[in-house]
Amino acid sequence: MSRSPGRKQENDKISRELFVLTYGALVAQLCKDYEKDEDVNTCLDRMGYGIGIRLIDDFLARSAVKKCRSYSETADMIAQVAFKMYLGVTPSVSCNSAAGNEFSLILDKNPLVDFVEELPAERASLCYCNLLCGVIRGALEMVHLAAEVTFLQDRLKGDAVTEIGITFLRKPEDRKHKR
Amino acid sequence: MSRSPGRKQENDKISRELFVLTYGALVAQLCKDYEKDEDVNTCLDRMGYGIGIRLIDDFLARSAVKKCRSYSETADMIAQVAFKMYLGVTPSVSCNSAAGNEFSLILDKNPLVDFVEELPAERASLCYCNLLCGVIRGALEMVHLAAEVTFLQDRLKGDAVTEIGITFLRKPEDRKHKR
Repeated sequence: MSRSPGRKQENDKISRELFVLTYGALVAQLCKDYEKDEDVNTCLDRMGYGIGIRLIDDFLARSAVKKCRSYSETADMIAQVAFKMYLGVTPSVSCNSAAGNEFSLILDKNPLVDFVEELPAERASLCYCNLLCGVIRGALEMVHLAAEVTFLQDRLKGDAVTEIGITFLRKPEDRKHKR
Repeated sequence: MSRSPGRKQENDKISRELFVLTYGALVAQLCKDYEKDEDVNTCLDRMGYGIGIRLIDDFLARSAVKKCRSYSETADMIAQVAFKMYLGVTPSVSCNSAAGNEFSLILDKNPLVDFVEELPAERASLCYCNLLCGVIRGALEMVHLAAEVTFLQDRLKGDAVTEIGITFLRKPEDRKHKR
C-alpha cells in the first residue's frame, strides 16, 4: 500500500508500549530461533539496518532538518531529533575522540526495555536492543555516512547507563587529504 | 527493569514508523520460520495474546476509563480509545448481531501496513496483522471478557476495507440466565 503524499503526519503519534512489547516478542522469537546470543545480535542488527535504510526518508520528510555540517551535528541530530521522534527519549551526547569521529549516545532510561526485568542467565551476551544499532547504521549509510554502531554499556547487563557508540568511518578522500 | 510509579506518561508519544517497520521485520522472520501461513497466523495471534495481557494494565492506567456496562461500550472503547492510543487511528464500529455480542472494527486505513505493498503470491493466506487480534483477545480476557477476534476483511488481500470481527462469548451464567 503506497503512502499518500502530503498526508498530515502531525497526528500520527502513538503510545510506545505496544511497540515496546512487540519488540520484546521479536527478540524472544529470535532467541527461540538462534541458540547463540551472537547470532541473535547479528540478526537484530541486520533487521535494524533494513529498517534504517527505509526509515531515513520518513525522518528527513518529518523533521525537515538541513544537511549536517559535521559529525558532531549529526550525532546531536540523532539524539535530539531522531530518538525523540521514534522512541520519545533524548540521549545525551559525548564526543570520545580527539579526531572528532567517535561519539556516545547515553541513555539514562531506555524505553525499549520498559517491560524487561533482566536478561536470563543463559542469555548474558544478548544485546537486547541491537536493532537500534542497525537502524542508526542503515539510516546513516543512506545519507552517505558510513559508521560502526555498537552498545558500549547496557543497563540490562548491570551498567549504570545504556551507551551506544557511533564511530564515523572516514571517507577515502578524507584519509587522502590527511596524508 | 521496573517502571517507576507515577511517572509522567503524557510525553511518551512516539512516531509510529519505527514500530510499523519493526512489526514488518517480525512478520518477515516468522515467514522464514514457518512454511505454512496458518502457522504464522497462529504464532502472531499467540504473541499478540501475550502482549494484550500485559498491555491492559498500561491501558487502564493511561486511559483512566471506567468499567464498561455493555459489549457495545467495550467495542467503542477499543476503537475510540485503545486504537487511537496505540496505533493512532480510530476504526468505526458496527454491531453485527441481534444478540448484541458481535462487532466489527472497520479500518479505512491500517497503519500497520504502511510500508507493505502487497502480500507475496505464496503468502496469500497470511493474516499480516494477526498480532492485533491476539492483543485484543488477551486484553479482553484480563477484564474477564472472553472473545473470539479474527480478521473478516483485509485490504492487503484486496478487500475494500480492513475489518476485525470481535465476538464476545457469553459467560456460563448468562446462558443459564437465558434458559
